[in-house]
Amino acid sequence: MSSPTASRCDTPALFRETVWRTLTLTVVRTDNAWVTLATNDSYSLGALVLAHSLKTVKTAHKLAILITPGVTAPMKQQIETVFDEVKVVDVLDSRDQTHLALMCRPELGVTFTKLHCWTFTNYDKCVFLDADTLVLQNCDELFEREELSAAPDPGWPDCFNSGVFVYKPSQDTFGQLLEFARTKGSFDGGDQGLLNMFFKEWSNTDISKHLSFTYNVVWSSTYSYLPALKQFGQNMKIVHFIASSKPWLQSFNTETRLVTSTHGGSGLQELLQLWWDLFCHHVHPGLSTEMVTYYTT
Amino acid sequence: MSSPTASRCDTPALFRETVWRTLTLTVVRTDNAWVTLATNDSYSLGALVLAHSLKTVKTAHKLAILITPGVTAPMKQQIETVFDEVKVVDVLDSRDQTHLALMCRPELGVTFTKLHCWTFTNYDKCVFLDADTLVLQNCDELFEREELSAAPDPGWPDCFNSGVFVYKPSQDTFGQLLEFARTKGSFDGGDQGLLNMFFKEWSNTDISKHLSFTYNVVWSSTYSYLPALKQFGQNMKIVHFIASSKPWLQSFNTETRLVTSTHGGSGLQELLQLWWDLFCHHVHPGLSTEMVTYYTT
Repeated sequence: MSSPTASRCDTPALFRETVWRTLTLTVVRTDNAWVTLATNDSYSLGALVLAHSLKTVKTAHKLAILITPGVTAPMKQQIETVFDEVKVVDVLDSRDQTHLALMCRPELGVTFTKLHCWTFTNYDKCVFLDADTLVLQNCDELFEREELSAAPDPGWPDCFNSGVFVYKPSQDTFGQLLEFARTKGSFDGGDQGLLNMFFKEWSNTDISKHLSFTYNVVWSSTYSYLPALKQFGQNMKIVHFIASSKPWLQSFNTETRLVTSTHGGSGLQELLQLWWDLFCHHVHPGLSTEMVTYYTT
Repeated sequence: MSSPTASRCDTPALFRETVWRTLTLTVVRTDNAWVTLATNDSYSLGALVLAHSLKTVKTAHKLAILITPGVTAPMKQQIETVFDEVKVVDVLDSRDQTHLALMCRPELGVTFTKLHCWTFTNYDKCVFLDADTLVLQNCDELFEREELSAAPDPGWPDCFNSGVFVYKPSQDTFGQLLEFARTKGSFDGGDQGLLNMFFKEWSNTDISKHLSFTYNVVWSSTYSYLPALKQFGQNMKIVHFIASSKPWLQSFNTETRLVTSTHGGSGLQELLQLWWDLFCHHVHPGLSTEMVTYYTT
């Protein structure tokens, strides 16, 4: 039986439905993801330790990875147990615009692979982390930043370091990046030169896109400003082991489970030990006998 | 004879006088100055070459310098022929608030001297340049920036490098800096640590206060990002010879008039030669025989 009262009661129901539909549409793409890249088994170890460091600091976000055919099948299996999404990118075998771009710039193979991070369009926002980074504290607040946010590179701080950056996945941006790479190339032959030219307004336009250096402490073998490290080191959230400071290039004693840095000093030893502790606890048990022999001797 | 007409004629005259007075008051402090510091004769040579580099690029602004009793009398005479204003600061001998502050923090002697740059209140705005910098292109546009503008330090780019900074002279700010130094000290034992703590909002508040790295290319003996140097090096406006890259620490052949950098490579040699060319052309002729013997053998 229909009555004015019932009709009035229907209005909130319709309202609720409309609100629900709106909310549903609004929340379609609220997932965020950390994204990394591995082009071989060594960097895969880095990516695995990185993923476990993110889990250790209890990130609320998904973990995604780009891998190339340079990663072996057993390693890919390990990666699949840890990451929420694994995307294999084979730029040499592709028959799309990436391949065309690569034909013009064969030196940019790995760079073209990294650019594929923009194709994770099932996520609303992503933070790219190089596989030689290690997360020391929860930094989920990075997802509040806009594209392209990154920390300055110590080598030339008008440029950002492309080992850690916040971005918004988009096929359109991906296409523009490929076209830019094809026509302009990269001044350093890698992704950092390319991205700095593409996002060239980073240096002088919006301070909110300048991440603190604590989100990407680029650690080379020599460190030039030790007092600052002592003063601000406890705020460090992400360390980036560049060049010869990479953890998997250090000497590791399997009996004592201690790493010996060839460079030593300056707090690097402690950070390398943290990496190896995560490796021993979370990564090593999943490796096959051949892989263990290869990586720890 | 007074008439209504004459009275009307007086009004513009009074108006002109008022405008003239206002303009006079307004233009009292429109001078700007480059300011540097020399605590001994070696740094005085740097300051002299720096001053000539500023004249070579035809700066429109004054040159001022702080010197300490560590600078010899003949060198002070040379300095006086080149700089528009020479201020002798003797913090050890002072009987003012500087001396009180120094008693609490004896390790900050040179830092307290440098802070005196804020006392050049006869200038509207200043740019401080360390005596181991060299100006390669006119950069008078720096005076359009506000206090405190500076370029990032490569060692920890959340900090600015205090070798080049734009500031507004003020007795009030000077007093606050002294008090800050007395109570808080400096995390690196020098002016850079102190100024970075005092102007701590620099890192994340206003992008216009982030000078391009080209205004303070900090050149250590090793250079880590050569492709960026190649890409952006032609935009370099001020080079900063830190640590062992200082020009007066290099080997110089008085016959060939060529410098030989102990580090070499990376474009450093050319910049050091430029410094020595300015030295030979403008500074060397004014030095006494003893000074020439001391500095060029």
